[in-house]
Amino acid sequence: MPDRPFVSLTTDFGAAYTAICAGVIYSIAPSANVLVLSDEVTPYAVTEGAMLLRQALPYLPAGVHVGIVDPGVGTPRRPVAVVTGRGDVLIGPDNGLLPPAAEVLGGAIHAYELADPAYRLPEVSTSFHGRDIFSPAAAHVANGLPPAELGPRVPPSALRPLQVPPVTKDDDALTASTLYIDRFGSLVLAARRDDLPATPAYGTPLEVTWTTRDGTPRTIRAPFVETFGSVAEGEPLLWVDSSGWLGLAVNQGSAAARFGLASDAVLTIRPATEE
Amino acid sequence: MPDRPFVSLTTDFGAAYTAICAGVIYSIAPSANVLVLSDEVTPYAVTEGAMLLRQALPYLPAGVHVGIVDPGVGTPRRPVAVVTGRGDVLIGPDNGLLPPAAEVLGGAIHAYELADPAYRLPEVSTSFHGRDIFSPAAAHVANGLPPAELGPRVPPSALRPLQVPPVTKDDDALTASTLYIDRFGSLVLAARRDDLPATPAYGTPLEVTWTTRDGTPRTIRAPFVETFGSVAEGEPLLWVDSSGWLGLAVNQGSAAARFGLASDAVLTIRPATEE
Amino acid sequence: MPDRPFVSLTTDFGAAYTAICAGVIYSIAPSANVLVLSDEVTPYAVTEGAMLLRQALPYLPAGVHVGIVDPGVGTPRRPVAVVTGRGDVLIGPDNGLLPPAAEVLGGAIHAYELADPAYRLPEVSTSFHGRDIFSPAAAHVANGLPPAELGPRVPPSALRPLQVPPVTKDDDALTASTLYIDRFGSLVLAARRDDLPATPAYGTPLEVTWTTRDGTPRTIRAPFVETFGSVAEGEPLLWVDSSGWLGLAVNQGSAAARFGLASDAVLTIRPATEE
Repeated sequence: MPDRPFVSLTTDFGAAYTAICAGVIYSIAPSANVLVLSDEVTPYAVTEGAMLLRQALPYLPAGVHVGIVDPGVGTPRRPVAVVTGRGDVLIGPDNGLLPPAAEVLGGAIHAYELADPAYRLPEVSTSFHGRDIFSPAAAHVANGLPPAELGPRVPPSALRPLQVPPVTKDDDALTASTLYIDRFGSLVLAARRDDLPATPAYGTPLEVTWTTRDGTPRTIRAPFVETFGSVAEGEPLLWVDSSGWLGLAVNQGSAAARFGLASDAVLTIRPATEE
Repeated sequence: MPDRPFVSLTTDFGAAYTAICAGVIYSIAPSANVLVLSDEVTPYAVTEGAMLLRQALPYLPAGVHVGIVDPGVGTPRRPVAVVTGRGDVLIGPDNGLLPPAAEVLGGAIHAYELADPAYRLPEVSTSFHGRDIFSPAAAHVANGLPPAELGPRVPPSALRPLQVPPVTKDDDALTASTLYIDRFGSLVLAARRDDLPATPAYGTPLEVTWTTRDGTPRTIRAPFVETFGSVAEGEPLLWVDSSGWLGLAVNQGSAAARFGLASDAVLTIRPATEE
Repeated sequence: MPDRPFVSLTTDFGAAYTAICAGVIYSIAPSANVLVLSDEVTPYAVTEGAMLLRQALPYLPAGVHVGIVDPGVGTPRRPVAVVTGRGDVLIGPDNGLLPPAAEVLGGAIHAYELADPAYRLPEVSTSFHGRDIFSPAAAHVANGLPPAELGPRVPPSALRPLQVPPVTKDDDALTASTLYIDRFGSLVLAARRDDLPATPAYGTPLEVTWTTRDGTPRTIRAPFVETFGSVAEGEPLLWVDSSGWLGLAVNQGSAAARFGLASDAVLTIRPATEE
C-alpha cells in the first residue's frame, strides 16, 4: 500500500452523512486520502450511481472505492468487496452498483462478503451501513488488509448485475431510456452512437419523439453534433458524452427544463424527414 | 499534535465560503487534514447544526472541530474554543451549537474566549467570522497552540446551552417537535424511543397526528419498525435513527413531501386504535 | 514545489464531475492537496465564478488554482495558465474568468496557452476539458513543471478581460447591477461603498428602487449598516460584504425571496426622503 492510500466515496447521503463515512475512514486509516466522488446521487438511484462509478473511476487513482446507493439497507442483501484487474477494491452493496465499474477497471477478479465483525464498527446500526460496515472495511483495506480477510469468497459471476433498460432498435429508429439527467439538465440515454439508425455523421438532422405527461406525442428536430457549440444558444442537439453515451442537450440551457423531460423519459430517435 | 492534525468544518455557508475557511486553515497549518463535515446546514439553524455535530463527531478522529451556524455574527456573542474529555477542541460561536457535541465527547472540560488578535486574521470583517476568527483559531490549535493561549477562560458551565423543545408525554401519547428533516425527507424528532407510551416492540402499529397548514388535524397509521425494509415501498414507518432519535419516514420515499410536513412540524404519537 | 502542493478547483460542474477532475490531479500528482473551492457556480456564469475566485483566492495558500466556467468549451477559445505576482498559477479558459483574481494576487505576470499534448490526457473529449486539459495541466505544474513548458507565451495584456456591468452614478443616486446572489439570498452588487452618493455613514437611511417583473417601479427603505444585527430580524439592510462589494440583504432572511429579485436585478440607491 502507498504512503497515502487513495479512497473514494460515492453515496446518495448528502454532505454530512458522507463526511461521517470519511471520518470513520480517517479514524481507522489516518494516512488515507479520501475523495468524495459524489454525495449527491439521487436517493436510491442505483443505475445513476453505477453509471457515475463506471464513468469516473477510470480517471481516479487505483485505490479503494466505496459506492453506497443501497435501497436494501437493513434487508439481507450482501455487502461486498470486489477486487478489479487494475488493482482497485470496490466496496458496497451487492445490488448491481459495482459491476459496471469493475468491468471498465479490468474486470472483477475476486469478490468477498464483508462478514468479519472485526472489520466493522463495534456496533452496527440497521440503517447506516455506510458508516458501520462499508467505511470500516474500506479503511482496513487502505491500511493494507488483504480483501480476502474481510469474509467468505463470492464468485464474481455470482455478483448481482446492474439492471439497465435495453434499447429497442431497427433500421429506422432507436428507442432508449434515460440513464440519468446531469447537472446541466442534459439527458444521458442508455444507448451508444452505433445504436442510432445508420450511424449518422456529425451534422445530420434527427427527430426525437416522446410522449408528454398528458399522453400527447411530441417531436422535435435536433442535429447530431460533436460539440454543444455547433448549434446556436438555446437550440437542442444530440451528442455523445465523454463516456460514449448518447444524449439530448440544449446548448447553454437545460433539455430537461425546456422539454419537460424527467429521468423516466423514453426517447425515440430517427432520421429527420424533409421539412 | 500529530503529523497531520485533523480539522473538521461544519457550516451553513455553502461550498465556497466553507472552502475559504479551509483555505485559511491550510494557509496557517499546511499539514492539516481538513474535512468538511457539512457546508449545507440550513442557514441559521443552530439546532440542526448542533444535532449534526453531536451525531457525527464521535465518528470523526479526535481533533479540532469548527462549527459555525451563527445568526448573531456581528453582534457581541462570544466566539469560543471548548476542550472536550476526548481531547477535541470545538470552535464556534457560544450560542448553543457546541455543547451537545461536547457532552458526547467526554464533556466540556475547559473553554476559552477567542479574544487574542494574534490568532485572528489581521483584518476582521463584521460578517465573516468563520474566515477571520474561527478558522485561524482552529489552524493555530492544529499547529499545536494550547487553547488557553486563545483568550480568557470561560467556565464550561457558563457556555450557553442549546435550546431544544421539550417533549410532552403521558401514558397515552407523546408529542414531540421536529429537530430536522434529513436528506431523504425523513423527520427526526426531539424524542427518544423510551419517550413513546409503553415503549412499543418492533412491529407495533402506532398513530401519528398533526395539524395541517389549513388547521385540520390529520392522522396516519405507521408501524414502529427496526428497518425501513420492514414496510412496503412507499409506506410510512416510525423508527429510531442511528443516533437514537425517533423519526417518521417513508420507505424509499420522503415523509416530508408525502405528508406536507416541514421542519416546524409537531407530531403526536399514540398506540393505534383497532381498525 | 512544496511536499504537498496546493491545488484548488472552482467549477460549475457539480460534485461528481469536479471530483473526477480531482481524481485526474491525484493520478498525476499523488502528493497534491486538492481543495474544491466550489463545484456549484451557477452553470455558465462566468462573472459569478470570476467574483468568487477574486474574493476567495487571497485567503487560500499560493498554489495552482483551476477555474472552469466555460460556456465556450468545444469552440476555439484558448485554455491558459496565468502566473501571478504572488506565485500562483491560475488555470482555466481565457474568457474573463481568471483576470480579476490575478489582479488581486499581484497581477498577471506571465501567461501561456495550454497547447502541449504531453500535458493533456491522451484522449481529449470535446465537452470535458476540465478533465482532459485543465486538470492534467494543473497536476503537472503541481509536480513542478515550469508553466512555460505548457505552451506558447500569451502576453498578459492579451488575456480576455471580464465584462462587468459599469455603475451609473451622480450626486443623487447610484444605479448598479447584481454580480451574484449568495447562498443566503443577499444581492451582491457591482458597486463599492464610495460609489454611493455622499458616502453615507452607518445608520443612514437609504432608498432602493427597482422595476418588478410586471414593469412596476418598487421602492423600499433600508439603512446602510455595518452588521446584519443592526436591524431587526426580517428587516432589509444595505451593507458592504467582506470583499468590499455593496449588497442588499435581509437580516436572517433572503432579500431575493422577500423582494422577488433575481440575478439580473438592477438597483438604484439614493438617500431616503423624509417620511
